Amino acid sequence: MASEPKNTGRAVDLNSDMGESFGVYPMGVDNEVLRWVTSANVACGWHGGDPAVMRATVRRAKELGVAVGAHPGYPDLLGFGRRVMQISQEEARDYTVYQIGALRAFAEAQGLRLQHVKAHGALYNAAVKDPELSRGIAEGVAEAGRELILVGLPGSEIIKAGRALGLRVAREAFGDRAYNEDGTLVSRKIPGSLITDPDAVAQRVLDMAAEGRIIAITGKPIRVEADTICLHGDTPGAPAIARRVHERLKAAGLRLTPMAAFVA
Amino acid sequence: MASEPKNTGRAVDLNSDMGESFGVYPMGVDNEVLRWVTSANVACGWHGGDPAVMRATVRRAKELGVAVGAHPGYPDLLGFGRRVMQISQEEARDYTVYQIGALRAFAEAQGLRLQHVKAHGALYNAAVKDPELSRGIAEGVAEAGRELILVGLPGSEIIKAGRALGLRVAREAFGDRAYNEDGTLVSRKIPGSLITDPDAVAQRVLDMAAEGRIIAITGKPIRVEADTICLHGDTPGAPAIARRVHERLKAAGLRLTPMAAFVA
Amino acid sequence: MASEPKNTGRAVDLNSDMGESFGVYPMGVDNEVLRWVTSANVACGWHGGDPAVMRATVRRAKELGVAVGAHPGYPDLLGFGRRVMQISQEEARDYTVYQIGALRAFAEAQGLRLQHVKAHGALYNAAVKDPELSRGIAEGVAEAGRELILVGLPGSEIIKAGRALGLRVAREAFGDRAYNEDGTLVSRKIPGSLITDPDAVAQRVLDMAAEGRIIAITGKPIRVEADTICLHGDTPGAPAIARRVHERLKAAGLRLTPMAAFVA
Amino acid sequence: MASEPKNTGRAVDLNSDMGESFGVYPMGVDNEVLRWVTSANVACGWHGGDPAVMRATVRRAKELGVAVGAHPGYPDLLGFGRRVMQISQEEARDYTVYQIGALRAFAEAQGLRLQHVKAHGALYNAAVKDPELSRGIAEGVAEAGRELILVGLPGSEIIKAGRALGLRVAREAFGDRAYNEDGTLVSRKIPGSLITDPDAVAQRVLDMAAEGRIIAITGKPIRVEADTICLHGDTPGAPAIARRVHERLKAAGLRLTPMAAFVA
Repeated sequence: MASEPKNTGRAVDLNSDMGESFGVYPMGVDNEVLRWVTSANVACGWHGGDPAVMRATVRRAKELGVAVGAHPGYPDLLGFGRRVMQISQEEARDYTVYQIGALRAFAEAQGLRLQHVKAHGALYNAAVKDPELSRGIAEGVAEAGRELILVGLPGSEIIKAGRALGLRVAREAFGDRAYNEDGTLVSRKIPGSLITDPDAVAQRVLDMAAEGRIIAITGKPIRVEADTICLHGDTPGAPAIARRVHERLKAAGLRLTPMAAFVA
Repeated sequence: MASEPKNTGRAVDLNSDMGESFGVYPMGVDNEVLRWVTSANVACGWHGGDPAVMRATVRRAKELGVAVGAHPGYPDLLGFGRRVMQISQEEARDYTVYQIGALRAFAEAQGLRLQHVKAHGALYNAAVKDPELSRGIAEGVAEAGRELILVGLPGSEIIKAGRALGLRVAREAFGDRAYNEDGTLVSRKIPGSLITDPDAVAQRVLDMAAEGRIIAITGKPIRVEADTICLHGDTPGAPAIARRVHERLKAAGLRLTPMAAFVA
Repeated sequence: MASEPKNTGRAVDLNSDMGESFGVYPMGVDNEVLRWVTSANVACGWHGGDPAVMRATVRRAKELGVAVGAHPGYPDLLGFGRRVMQISQEEARDYTVYQIGALRAFAEAQGLRLQHVKAHGALYNAAVKDPELSRGIAEGVAEAGRELILVGLPGSEIIKAGRALGLRVAREAFGDRAYNEDGTLVSRKIPGSLITDPDAVAQRVLDMAAEGRIIAITGKPIRVEADTICLHGDTPGAPAIARRVHERLKAAGLRLTPMAAFVA
Repeated sequence: MASEPKNTGRAVDLNSDMGESFGVYPMGVDNEVLRWVTSANVACGWHGGDPAVMRATVRRAKELGVAVGAHPGYPDLLGFGRRVMQISQEEARDYTVYQIGALRAFAEAQGLRLQHVKAHGALYNAAVKDPELSRGIAEGVAEAGRELILVGLPGSEIIKAGRALGLRVAREAFGDRAYNEDGTLVSRKIPGSLITDPDAVAQRVLDMAAEGRIIAITGKPIRVEADTICLHGDTPGAPAIARRVHERLKAAGLRLTPMAAFVA
């Protein structure tokens, strides 16, 4: 994949987490953000989401031509899947299979195929450096369907685990997060870690997508290999940011398309 | 289906609820009972069961050549799905889709197709006389897969709803439950409602399968149209009962086979 | 209580459901509404609420001098406790004890005593006509603390059950709901059942509190015996309504005070 | 406490985890083991247990004169509270308050006061070396009631946190677990870590209680400071072990009594 030139300056996928409302509790402004992204990571009822929300989210994604993926999380609704749990490789695998299967039934009922899987919150983060956990997630994806693309941080254990199992993988960058020089994300606890100005986010995403680079928080340009760029849907002004990014990329001649079109 | 002669005295399916353990909590003696039945109704994690249990149950069923179906229930682990909840038609549909999808991912990972869907506990019972609830469940089954067979009580709203949507349906009888003259089950609160003598159960199942009739609690023979006969896996002596039934049916020349082989 | 004159035109309690946020999911505008009511019904983590929310809600109520009560619900977070579940009398009792105890620990940690208990949603509604369920709830309240006031609809089974056990009871009216001539609430499905104009609600509450009567949806004045008047916190404009009601009652010379001050 | 001579050869408390059944799922043989211990750690519905089980366990403990304590765990029924979750200090505090409160309502309804609090499973283990987590738990205990005794491993952060807040603490030893020379428990993964022979366990408990020492797995005697000795209720033969321990201690002239009688 290091020699893969297909996604340099040509096609780009924008993804966003969706369907995280639960019961009477709304979350996010999915319908607004969905207009501007190309891939939706849909919660599967464990950290957020529920069957009615899953149905509605998949339907709306279909209407807008947005590709649908599963967004499995820890069994921790109380913590919204944001707290690491010490689950085993087998548990990670089985929880992944379960959640993908549940979402896929809604997708297939609408005539859609699932495109990808992206772990949520603490599960995503814990997997970055945990080979066993990553292996469990990747096994779950492989069991649920070898056509599924596994999304993760470039250089992470989850990407390695996906490749080791022969899965297609998509490396993810974050348009609204500051980067350290080593390519890791600046902690959310540090001021300036979250970028909320639409123009600034749009410029960063354009840099990532067209040039494969980003300006680190230190001011130094660094390389970022990204097949898909995440826009958070729960930040204030998310729809405006998403729209600006979308329009800016189009104006720059990039082709916005779901990742399945170009991830090898 | 009234004119369907295929299942008279020839083929018979034995089903049992399976995979209802949860986390550290075991339930039932699945591995024993699975040897003697032909269809397994596998819990999907809502009233019982969890991803690890679902995987293990599906694998064991595959090893033994037992067909696998989904056994969706109310979202009520605390009550084991045995308490009616006033859910809407849409909720019933969505909960059914979700649970079928989750189980199917485990089945397909083992190379198995789901054969059928049978609602659990209070959901099964509430649907008998509730057309809206039955419609919701049947819609969920139809969405999840039109090849799935919907199992229910003969004459119930769930059977009607399944037929109305063009689904194959399987009428279920109970080998270890006493019947009233009108074909309904004798309440569990009445002494004698549960039959636990292996020979007695075997004789009743044979009567149902070969003759399409059963002796009601009053002593009068009544007709019972059954495509599949349920053996409860959680009664004391369940494996011995299941084995006796199995052997008796075989000795009588009946063909034990999953319902998909003969349900039209 | 029929001869109780204390609450005619003098003291009045305003209550509102509070603390129904869950995890990352906010609900309501508790901090705004709490300023204008005298009793808070605090969710206990079953239909809504969680330990952090319970702590924060109790603390805020204390700051504002608002009395705190428990607001137990069905074990149904997915349905926000709005769906009837067929639980037994014993289950109702035990669920009530559990939820009161959990909330009380937070209240007592702040130096507050719990004042009252008001069932939530479908549990409240189901108890109106169900003597067994009402008995279970009332037993739970009596076990948890005989000083607790049980809140319910006038004439309901829950009020009868509370009195039968020797509990103090508070009869509740609804300031923002239309009434039928027989004193029951107009179904939410009927247009006009919910009153959202602050002045209209304030007038109705004043009529209830000062005169013990209300204009039914037919235009006819009916009697409403109310010890406490509920203002919904989740309707649009709830804080403005609560404020108007509060100010109007004060202007009319009524004394706003938690129900414990006057319920016999 | 290092100079505390009160518990050497005189009084001893035996504790066991209880009330961990959930809904239809039984666990343990509580009624048998309860006969032989003096303190019961009762699950509070988060990792195990439910309101009906809590009621029954408290009632049975009262009948047998066994002191009751709370046994709070992580919000992880699926994992039975055996998986570490990265919760904050505040979350640990609030979860502790909630669970203590819920159980206390059942205890007080029976006229019992809660004696102690002992964290369950992974929460207990994680707190051993985590000062923040331990502080959270101890704060929760202090808020719920300063009369409550906090139980933990000798030398653990939880014991330090309890003392720092001025709580009474009880140091716990394990009668059926092998010890390393440094006083830590031999990992369950190592053969011989769990001792199941009733006479062997009884001898070890007697050594601990009367002499304050135990033979480590290496054969070397080490000191063990224990105010209370845990007997696991879920091991095979637990009732027989508990009975042998109980009888042996009595025969040796030790006084079996709930820890509140002697913990300073």
